[in-house]
Amino acid sequence: MALDPQRGFFITLEGGEGSGKSTQARRLNVLLRRMGRDVVLTREPGGTTHGEAIREMLLSGLIRPFGSEAEALFFAVARREHVLHLIRPALEEGQVVVCDRFADSTRAYQGVAGVPQETILRLEEIALTGTQPDLTLILDIDPAVGLARAAGRSAADRFEADELALHEARRHAFLAIAKAEPERCVVIDASLTADEIAAQIEAAVGARLPRATGTS
Amino acid sequence: MALDPQRGFFITLEGGEGSGKSTQARRLNVLLRRMGRDVVLTREPGGTTHGEAIREMLLSGLIRPFGSEAEALFFAVARREHVLHLIRPALEEGQVVVCDRFADSTRAYQGVAGVPQETILRLEEIALTGTQPDLTLILDIDPAVGLARAAGRSAADRFEADELALHEARRHAFLAIAKAEPERCVVIDASLTADEIAAQIEAAVGARLPRATGTS
Ligand SMILES: Nc1ncnc2c1ncn2[C@@H]1O[C@H](COP(=O)(O)OP(=O)(O)O)[C@@H](O)[C@H]1O
Ligand SMILES: Nc1ncnc2c1ncn2[C@@H]1O[C@H](COP(=O)(O)OP(=O)(O)O)[C@@H](O)[C@H]1O
Ligand SMILES: [Mg+2]
Ligand SMILES: [Mg+2]
Repeated sequence: MALDPQRGFFITLEGGEGSGKSTQARRLNVLLRRMGRDVVLTREPGGTTHGEAIREMLLSGLIRPFGSEAEALFFAVARREHVLHLIRPALEEGQVVVCDRFADSTRAYQGVAGVPQETILRLEEIALTGTQPDLTLILDIDPAVGLARAAGRSAADRFEADELALHEARRHAFLAIAKAEPERCVVIDASLTADEIAAQIEAAVGARLPRATGTS
Repeated sequence: MALDPQRGFFITLEGGEGSGKSTQARRLNVLLRRMGRDVVLTREPGGTTHGEAIREMLLSGLIRPFGSEAEALFFAVARREHVLHLIRPALEEGQVVVCDRFADSTRAYQGVAGVPQETILRLEEIALTGTQPDLTLILDIDPAVGLARAAGRSAADRFEADELALHEARRHAFLAIAKAEPERCVVIDASLTADEIAAQIEAAVGARLPRATGTS
């Protein structure tokens, strides 16, 4: 936990397609700025040099013939670059980092796709090199509802196009992570309106975010 | 073997650092054009959309913390794109493709680095999807001599910087490939002058390249 106010605070948003992660990340950015915080709003892979290329390779299906472990590795490489070049430097400057998807998405997506847990955790260790989220908001929603929302947004990508049972399994994987790490994770009911979700998130963040340096 | 003259002819140059692959690939390009052939001169990863990014990630050392298998996978992903989008289309048009390094470099470098042979061959299968070289020129040289040549060229990259024993082991891996696949591979003494090497290569290519359509 980031109880040292000199260090920033690292918040991740996780959950299935259309659960509202990107919407709520933007709202949280606005809220935190109103609270006077310096915020970095980012998403995986965060616009780092190679991250966007890796994201395209993954979403275009180029990695898919090599299997799920290969996909997990590509996510991990992008994440390592994101952590080393963007997230960690911002935290070291005392900023609040809000990240749209992070390591739990790999646990849920590639875990459900059959990548052994020990492989996932080994990749996570190399990618994060100690930079763990202080707070993870798990936006929980019935995948049928989330996918219908996402369908209104754009054509289905590599992962959205998977069958419903797989999305259900990912949902349960996210809930299992929340149960295993209750200190870090807060489950948010994402079936509500965007305003109601934002209120839940405001409460969760308000309860955990250390007071800013110099204001206590 | 590409005995169908409608199909092109696929030549790869392999060998250690400073053995003269790039020099000889350029000379072979000139020679083949003088012989009236349509030639595509390429190198791994061949300027494909993501290939150069993958090459940079590999040479900068970003993949290294994930281990040799991860490096082998990144090479394979770049190779698959190179094969699908550049090499195979050129061969289907009947061109001669000259490629500076290809799958044998992964066998030699990542094989020596401890990636299991079955992993390398599985990655190779996915990357090549049937597109094998018709002729592989293995430029054989004492690594101490090759490295001294390469040092005159530029600063050592991720792989050049490895210790001499590793370079020796790669040399023996290339020679083992040549021995196992004598139909495909020709070992060239790369300790000679560039002119002498070019003459050896001209003889090897002349003996194997099918006559061009319509000229026989
Ligand atoms: N609470 C909500 N109720 C209904 N629709 C929503 C809600 N939150 C977001 N949306 C809409 O659903 C779609 C997916 O939201 P988005 O934030 O992109 O989800 P995610 O990033 O989790 O995939 C968008 O079109 C968005 O406007
Ligand atoms: N036969 C040769 N004898 C001496 N130097 C050579 C020879 N062939 C190439 N060189 C020089 O050695 C260096 C490495 O050659 P290069 O073709 O780049 O090797 P590679 O691509 O195998 O690493 C270059 O500076 C090149 O000009
Ligand atoms: Mg989103
Ligand atoms: Mg070269």
